[in-house]
Amino acid sequence: MARRGIISILIICIILFIISLFEYAAVSKNSYGSIRRRDSFKAHKLYSDLRNSLATDEPPLNDTNRSRRCEPMHVGFVCSGHKSNLYLMTLLKSILFHRNKPLHFHLIVNKFSDKVLRTLFETWDIPQVTVSFYDMNDYLPDIRWVPNSHYSGIYGLLKLLFPTVLPNVEKIIILDTDLIFTSDIDELWQLFNNFDYLHAIGLVENESDFYLSKKSTIWPAIGRGYNTGVILYRLDRLRNMQWDKLWTRVSKKAALMYGSTSLGDQDIMNTVLKQYPHLVYDVPCYWNTQLSDHTRSESCYKNNKIKVVHWNSPKKFNVNNRDGEYFRSIYKTFLEMNGDLVRSVLYDCHNISGDNSQNQRDVCDDFTKGTLNKWRTLLFFRNFEYIPVDYDVTFVAQLSYDRLQMVEELTKHWEGPISLTLYVTDPEFQQANKYLENSEILQERTNIAYHAVFKNGDYHPINMLRNVGLRNVNTPYVFLADIDFLPMFGLYNVIRNTLSASPKGLTKKALIIPAFESQRYRNRFPRNKVELLQMLENKSLFTFRFDVWASGHSPTNYTRWRNAKSPYTVKWEPDFEPYVVVRRDVTEYDGRFMGFGWNKVSHIMELECQDYEFLVMHNAFIVHQPHSPSYDIAKFRMSPIYRMCLQNLKELFVEGLKTKYGRSFDNKKVSIDPIIS
Amino acid sequence: MARRGIISILIICIILFIISLFEYAAVSKNSYGSIRRRDSFKAHKLYSDLRNSLATDEPPLNDTNRSRRCEPMHVGFVCSGHKSNLYLMTLLKSILFHRNKPLHFHLIVNKFSDKVLRTLFETWDIPQVTVSFYDMNDYLPDIRWVPNSHYSGIYGLLKLLFPTVLPNVEKIIILDTDLIFTSDIDELWQLFNNFDYLHAIGLVENESDFYLSKKSTIWPAIGRGYNTGVILYRLDRLRNMQWDKLWTRVSKKAALMYGSTSLGDQDIMNTVLKQYPHLVYDVPCYWNTQLSDHTRSESCYKNNKIKVVHWNSPKKFNVNNRDGEYFRSIYKTFLEMNGDLVRSVLYDCHNISGDNSQNQRDVCDDFTKGTLNKWRTLLFFRNFEYIPVDYDVTFVAQLSYDRLQMVEELTKHWEGPISLTLYVTDPEFQQANKYLENSEILQERTNIAYHAVFKNGDYHPINMLRNVGLRNVNTPYVFLADIDFLPMFGLYNVIRNTLSASPKGLTKKALIIPAFESQRYRNRFPRNKVELLQMLENKSLFTFRFDVWASGHSPTNYTRWRNAKSPYTVKWEPDFEPYVVVRRDVTEYDGRFMGFGWNKVSHIMELECQDYEFLVMHNAFIVHQPHSPSYDIAKFRMSPIYRMCLQNLKELFVEGLKTKYGRSFDNKKVSIDPIIS
Repeated sequence: MARRGIISILIICIILFIISLFEYAAVSKNSYGSIRRRDSFKAHKLYSDLRNSLATDEPPLNDTNRSRRCEPMHVGFVCSGHKSNLYLMTLLKSILFHRNKPLHFHLIVNKFSDKVLRTLFETWDIPQVTVSFYDMNDYLPDIRWVPNSHYSGIYGLLKLLFPTVLPNVEKIIILDTDLIFTSDIDELWQLFNNFDYLHAIGLVENESDFYLSKKSTIWPAIGRGYNTGVILYRLDRLRNMQWDKLWTRVSKKAALMYGSTSLGDQDIMNTVLKQYPHLVYDVPCYWNTQLSDHTRSESCYKNNKIKVVHWNSPKKFNVNNRDGEYFRSIYKTFLEMNGDLVRSVLYDCHNISGDNSQNQRDVCDDFTKGTLNKWRTLLFFRNFEYIPVDYDVTFVAQLSYDRLQMVEELTKHWEGPISLTLYVTDPEFQQANKYLENSEILQERTNIAYHAVFKNGDYHPINMLRNVGLRNVNTPYVFLADIDFLPMFGLYNVIRNTLSASPKGLTKKALIIPAFESQRYRNRFPRNKVELLQMLENKSLFTFRFDVWASGHSPTNYTRWRNAKSPYTVKWEPDFEPYVVVRRDVTEYDGRFMGFGWNKVSHIMELECQDYEFLVMHNAFIVHQPHSPSYDIAKFRMSPIYRMCLQNLKELFVEGLKTKYGRSFDNKKVSIDPIIS
Repeated sequence: MARRGIISILIICIILFIISLFEYAAVSKNSYGSIRRRDSFKAHKLYSDLRNSLATDEPPLNDTNRSRRCEPMHVGFVCSGHKSNLYLMTLLKSILFHRNKPLHFHLIVNKFSDKVLRTLFETWDIPQVTVSFYDMNDYLPDIRWVPNSHYSGIYGLLKLLFPTVLPNVEKIIILDTDLIFTSDIDELWQLFNNFDYLHAIGLVENESDFYLSKKSTIWPAIGRGYNTGVILYRLDRLRNMQWDKLWTRVSKKAALMYGSTSLGDQDIMNTVLKQYPHLVYDVPCYWNTQLSDHTRSESCYKNNKIKVVHWNSPKKFNVNNRDGEYFRSIYKTFLEMNGDLVRSVLYDCHNISGDNSQNQRDVCDDFTKGTLNKWRTLLFFRNFEYIPVDYDVTFVAQLSYDRLQMVEELTKHWEGPISLTLYVTDPEFQQANKYLENSEILQERTNIAYHAVFKNGDYHPINMLRNVGLRNVNTPYVFLADIDFLPMFGLYNVIRNTLSASPKGLTKKALIIPAFESQRYRNRFPRNKVELLQMLENKSLFTFRFDVWASGHSPTNYTRWRNAKSPYTVKWEPDFEPYVVVRRDVTEYDGRFMGFGWNKVSHIMELECQDYEFLVMHNAFIVHQPHSPSYDIAKFRMSPIYRMCLQNLKELFVEGLKTKYGRSFDNKKVSIDPIIS
């Protein structure tokens, strides 16, 4: 009897001890980013806690296991249009700034975003980042049938398709583009370890009262429902349960009962989870702090450190929120952050030899290896809508931020399409975008394509910038110009008329638009050729660079131009650098020429090697507007290294022409130093 | 017997259960920022772990206790000289970017840093930040006796004095200025809770082998010793144990045995702790990741997420480190970060009413309340060493980044002292500083004071910028100029000669330097008055703004100037805005005038109200250099609001003059719209 008593007490003690050990283990495991569940579903909570402690299909991550630690995290987005491209770039900066592990991005995109974002990632060149693209056209038929009235259109619905789109990926985080991370995405990724064996989708509670409404058109949800701005998907489990059939079946039924969805994928997700509540894992609110108007987000962020800010109001960053200024500051920090700074290799998860390379660099590396450099590029960052007309021609130019104010004037002189490549820092880019948005004159012009190339290094990569503009036109012809020139009024149509009269188009032909210069501010612009000739006469206008760099334009033969009644052919001469209209498939500029000197000369020289005919337009002109000298000229004048490197590069370039075209230039013809001194 | 057995087993069970509960509690408490101790001092570690678990004098922080949570953290620095001011600004950006609680900064400063940093904090205007300054001269006698050979001089030793300097503060974090935070400083602050009842100083292990050396001149340390770049001080405990006497006694003895300290305060700290090891709490390495050459930091950051980067090499950011590029990127991010973004009020720890104020703003607020705005200002950000000579005069001007290239040319025309106020963004500031550092011409000039004012808002606060320059000169006279003017060669001495001949100095007197303009680039600069008159004749030079804004300078009476052989007095007329030499205590510019228009006019008008005599210098001139029109002019031309607000402000200003000086201007005399249109 006593012995039995001892034994039973011992058993009770041992059970108590084991239970306490279990609790210890549970707390240890959750010590990083521990989960606070909502109070509303207490029964569900207890049930899932129990399952949590029994979960077996996921071994805990071992931090000393480097290869495991360095496995990429998968992150998915849906992107279409210039606005979501812009948002995405800022979101990516915030993710990449905080991350410490490799990432694999999966983007479902339309054709436009495919082009823009491929270029962005290719030129951003971030180590330990892999990117895969998926054409949304392949998947739209699967969702187009869903009746939907959400402001973001049907694209959000594509988020439901990731289990099908990525058949070989196990788990992924899906993000809306209107988010900002203020912590390491790895912390979010680690929440997958808290999933029990039934959990397949991790979501944060929806912070508005939308789903609490009793209206008959609101799709069903558990309590307040979930927000789909941040989703954790166990894709493997979703595929096992035939997720695609499941959500389709549920939402077809729901559509019959409640009508079209108001919030797209979010309605569908909530209605599915209402029926299958065991699928959902409750992610803590600070991983998706929703700042739309009238939300309860305050109760979340007052008690927790926010890790993801979600601008899910249609007003976006102008949302009414007591603490809006604080959150806007965080957002602005990433808007203005130099995106190139996330390019450096992580100190963990790599095997490369470190950064001693800079000691071995040649002084001219920036020049001779200029084409190898990568400049982050965001194409078409504003709305561009233009269908070319017959014999259409695009004005192509590049500019830095301080020349931006010249664009308005340009548009008064050129009504046709324009392709502008801005060379800017991240803060300048934001300023420029704001300026373009607010300019009454420019707002109205949807035929201007704006591209941003982000500053990197000390030299202005002028020819690379020109190529960005040149490669992204949709007209058959381009006018290769500079931003500090104003075309004569009507030039666009004069060029088109000339082209329409030219039977073979401009095959191996370049139309030269003669260039003049005004040396004074506040000069009046000549209304026509007659007035221009008068102004030349009374010396209020001059032929371009006549006094400092005559050989650049003298082959145009200004004397003949004065009385010419029709276009005339001129011969190429060394250092010739006219402004020309050519076919858009013209050979590109040599990207190695950076900063000041020989950047246009080399291009025209290559056209000469390709046997181009140079035809001067008798009825056209452009006028250079005075401005402060650029830094690049100042730098060149000061630096003997710059001069030396440019000289080396010129020699390399001329050798290259010989190899490529078999054409050699004797020393007399290639000037040794054609630079203003 | 059996009953006793049952009871004793029961007791054992209960003890086991209680122990397990204790462990549970310990893990919970450490879940955020748990401590990993170094393996090297295992015995010490066990001992201190034991004490940790018994620590009782510090109740755990209760997160729901808002008033406690919002108590400020105290952070101390020692700062002297323009370099440490610069470092500090970047370190502060990194701390403020991550922080979520109020902060109280304590700065021990020399006279120079006192002035600069007071201005910085006053103009930065960060909510929930308090700053206290302590004059290092009051404390230098306490440390000057310490024999020291560290490159940073004796200032580091001041870190030992915080217990005395702050008699009423309990605990404080002391930081070197060459650090960057990559996490919330509150996490570091929370480590105070892990101190046991004997711990008074928290430190990170020194990551070099310095103290392991057997040399007889190395001061003693425990193992590798500790690094003093980051210190956690329990000031109350240190005062209780008479810390000041303790470290003085220990280091006087040590100095006799080992000679002068190599590493200043760090040697002293280590030698004290060698004798009193129970005082030190081991802070995890990632709170002070030391990136000097040849350190073992890699073993720390490969296994932990870094929270503080310490650039403690004499080479600073050019340190040789395999992962240097990665750490430099983090550093650059904060260098370039817009510091104004940390200005927003924390979403926690405040009771103010939120940010609806912007809806109630008047369209002219930027103008009429211009003087209330705060622009973050960093004075003397480069080395300035200048002792004024007799009748000395400083050239004062403000400029934006795009005018920076004009400075070199200016220095060729003006050999005297110059005060330049740069209006820049944070990235532009870094670029500008780099440019100034690399300019061979400017490097040599230590008589140029550079001040940075950081961009904020859409309007260029031109008069506020002029005042910054004006307030920070050390010569008796100032030449109030603009950056786009070049003085005639020798003007500096011509002015000084004139001043030396003027018996009463310039009391109530302004010397006018006549202004001319060149409308062309590549114009030659007139060597003297004779040449200038010739150039006026042949129209290669003009009187300034003769064609668009004649009333600004016509009162100078250019006709009389041509033949004047001595200075002559002219009368003020409306819209007069000459460039003048005055005493440095001249009335300041009215800061409300921003952007383009009436900014100088208003100043000269106020001098007129003060009965200044305007004396034109017959033997002096300045020439305006052409440049692209500024954004502000472009903005003004476009915006009717700008024009309206300026008009309102002018009326306000004239009313103000009437109140202040009893002088009224009839409508005829105050032009209604003196703006270029």
